[in-house]
Amino acid sequence: MDIVSIIEDKKNRRALSKEQIAFFARGAADHSIPDYQLAALLMAIRLNGMDARETADLTMAMAESGDMLKPDVQGVPVDKHSTGGVGDTTTLVLAPLVAACGGKVLKMSGRGLGHTGGTLDKLESIPGMRVALPEEEFIQAVRTVGCAVVSQSGQLAPADKTLYALRDVTATVDSIPLIVSSILSKKFAAGAKAIVLDVKTGSGALMPTLDDSIALAQAMVDIGAHAGRSIVAVVSGMEEPLGSHVGNALEVKEAIDILAGRSGGPLKAVSLFLGAQMLIASGLAGTEDQARSLLTDALDSGRGLLKLKEMIAAQGGDARVCDDVTLLPQAPVIRPMLAREEGYLAHVDGTALGLAAQRMGAGRIAKDDVIDPAVGFVMQKRIGDFIRRGDTICTLHAKNEASAAEAEGRIAAALALSPAPAPRARLLYALVTPQGVQTLNA
Amino acid sequence: MDIVSIIEDKKNRRALSKEQIAFFARGAADHSIPDYQLAALLMAIRLNGMDARETADLTMAMAESGDMLKPDVQGVPVDKHSTGGVGDTTTLVLAPLVAACGGKVLKMSGRGLGHTGGTLDKLESIPGMRVALPEEEFIQAVRTVGCAVVSQSGQLAPADKTLYALRDVTATVDSIPLIVSSILSKKFAAGAKAIVLDVKTGSGALMPTLDDSIALAQAMVDIGAHAGRSIVAVVSGMEEPLGSHVGNALEVKEAIDILAGRSGGPLKAVSLFLGAQMLIASGLAGTEDQARSLLTDALDSGRGLLKLKEMIAAQGGDARVCDDVTLLPQAPVIRPMLAREEGYLAHVDGTALGLAAQRMGAGRIAKDDVIDPAVGFVMQKRIGDFIRRGDTICTLHAKNEASAAEAEGRIAAALALSPAPAPRARLLYALVTPQGVQTLNA
Repeated sequence: MDIVSIIEDKKNRRALSKEQIAFFARGAADHSIPDYQLAALLMAIRLNGMDARETADLTMAMAESGDMLKPDVQGVPVDKHSTGGVGDTTTLVLAPLVAACGGKVLKMSGRGLGHTGGTLDKLESIPGMRVALPEEEFIQAVRTVGCAVVSQSGQLAPADKTLYALRDVTATVDSIPLIVSSILSKKFAAGAKAIVLDVKTGSGALMPTLDDSIALAQAMVDIGAHAGRSIVAVVSGMEEPLGSHVGNALEVKEAIDILAGRSGGPLKAVSLFLGAQMLIASGLAGTEDQARSLLTDALDSGRGLLKLKEMIAAQGGDARVCDDVTLLPQAPVIRPMLAREEGYLAHVDGTALGLAAQRMGAGRIAKDDVIDPAVGFVMQKRIGDFIRRGDTICTLHAKNEASAAEAEGRIAAALALSPAPAPRARLLYALVTPQGVQTLNA
Repeated sequence: MDIVSIIEDKKNRRALSKEQIAFFARGAADHSIPDYQLAALLMAIRLNGMDARETADLTMAMAESGDMLKPDVQGVPVDKHSTGGVGDTTTLVLAPLVAACGGKVLKMSGRGLGHTGGTLDKLESIPGMRVALPEEEFIQAVRTVGCAVVSQSGQLAPADKTLYALRDVTATVDSIPLIVSSILSKKFAAGAKAIVLDVKTGSGALMPTLDDSIALAQAMVDIGAHAGRSIVAVVSGMEEPLGSHVGNALEVKEAIDILAGRSGGPLKAVSLFLGAQMLIASGLAGTEDQARSLLTDALDSGRGLLKLKEMIAAQGGDARVCDDVTLLPQAPVIRPMLAREEGYLAHVDGTALGLAAQRMGAGRIAKDDVIDPAVGFVMQKRIGDFIRRGDTICTLHAKNEASAAEAEGRIAAALALSPAPAPRARLLYALVTPQGVQTLNA
């Protein structure tokens, strides 16, 4: 077997065999195949595709290119993955709620780069919180608490690490088989048996059109069937930040507010929807109604907030933040940004809002930048709202007045007002399960 | 401008601008663009193509990535290029003939690698012959003699050098825009104003089907129109070696035999056809009939052979080989290979014959192998001939008996006999000029 004949086959639109796929995944993992040959193969895959069997083989080959965790969590290890968004804190809301309903949430998360935040960075805004737990420790936390959110442990899917880095610089990110195998290989290697995927659609998403996003969701659900995993996918919108809070400590605060019953809105709605799918995928609920009522009970009774406290404590953090959010880092400058024009908020550039937060210090520009946990902003308006001159558009949390002023300019540029009434942004578009595609209208 | 957006554009089937093409050609020449990004771009070009304008821009950008020779040869510098073949010595026949008719043949040639021979290796079998002439010296030779065959001088088309090496290992050789720009960029950089291309078709050729070969020929002729060069292309067969002689000194001997009027056959026929096109492209003949009669005069009068002597002398070689071919290197073992079966010679695997000669020592396996100028074989049979048991199939010229025996096995395996009469192999398929495609039947 040689890599040139594998590239040749894919160039000529032939399906690659399981052995060919295992060969190049191994070569990517141990760097025995040069990057230029992998890059040519990635472009051939991007342009000529891979069928469901090839994609499943690639997913398993990448998973098996490194450590394969077999976490004994005394239940079905369930994970949730989002393809990326701004102000998307669903993990911090749903992990405790699902755990409160008996779920075993083992979530390995990433750090933020670019305009989207990373769950690990958000958690680290809690004083004392550790995300790099040894394997035995986080499995123990999942067993006893029911949830843990940690950084990647061990050498998981090294083939994906090589290919992912190459895709970014060779314009081969937007390939369904490559996205699917990249996401799922890491989840499979981490031992997830049930996976709920949140596939974002719209400008700035991996797949810009709804059809492509549904196709991506279907491809991931298909792999679950091939690999004996329970996978469902939700296609959701990213027209504007999901929560109102953008910034690390601010997003933790919003999750606490929701779990404490003080806050609602789209972030709560989507978290409950995804959480219900996690309960069903774990076999802890038979129907969506049943799952929803379990979650609502957990929320209303305060057991969800209690689970968040337990999780924070298990990971070394100061759980008192759940009772007193002022213990979270506070920015020195907190002031409103007022509207200078009036009209209906018709369009929000979510990527630009994410970049505004990044420039305030909430995100990294280069990989080793240190982030400022306190900064960001809290939106007071959503798409469809009417804004009067002088209304508070958002509250800025900045490290100084200059940064607040710069953010104000960026945020203003990211919002488009219209004299005509504008419809609200759609939150949920479709639910994809092995049984088919169900259109959602929320 | 950045390389990722260029890859992105080609991935999305957009035509690249002249500036984008110049950007990546420069980056390939100075290695400022990493190989993996060039490899992804090459695959995107292979799969999504380039139109004639893009191909012309790429050709010129690669030509201009290094030295651009402007040879003052007191006439139109004409070149001829073949896409590769076994036993193809047309250059050594036609360069002197065209020079004898007033042409200015400035040919930069390559060395053999793999199963095809290289003109420079053939010439170096002549005692004393130098192919690495300084620029001023070979231009002077073209001026006074009318022809010179030399190795590449200066830093010609370094962008092509990078891309050519990458294409070989990324399965992106078989791309018409990449083949065209690779061949023509070097010719343009070397200063050729008139170019005759010999595009081989059939198994083992760059383009296996006749339609693809004609498309390649048309693409090259189109670039001539874009770049103000006179380009014509001939599509010819490579079902069997063109000449009967395979091996370096043996092929020189065959060229001398043809110029001396002692030998004929397909090599002579194709050399005259290509030579006529060179005279027309140079403006030295108005019609094919006129060009042919000029060439036949030069051949019959011995002026062609005289030009070969002058060329050899100008390049430091022993011109007496033209009068006494036994001054060329002789192999120690010369013996016939006899037929063990009978039937019509129906099929010849030209690649396998080329590899047989390579294994005898006539070609290189690795780039720095030293070749043996004396070895090879002289075929006595062509496709369509009837072979009786005991007939001489070929004469082997080997370094020892073991090598002769091994070659015998390889040659036997490369020939397929049939009980039914087999048609002769077609030599010439088409002539492609700016005026269109003319089907040939020879």
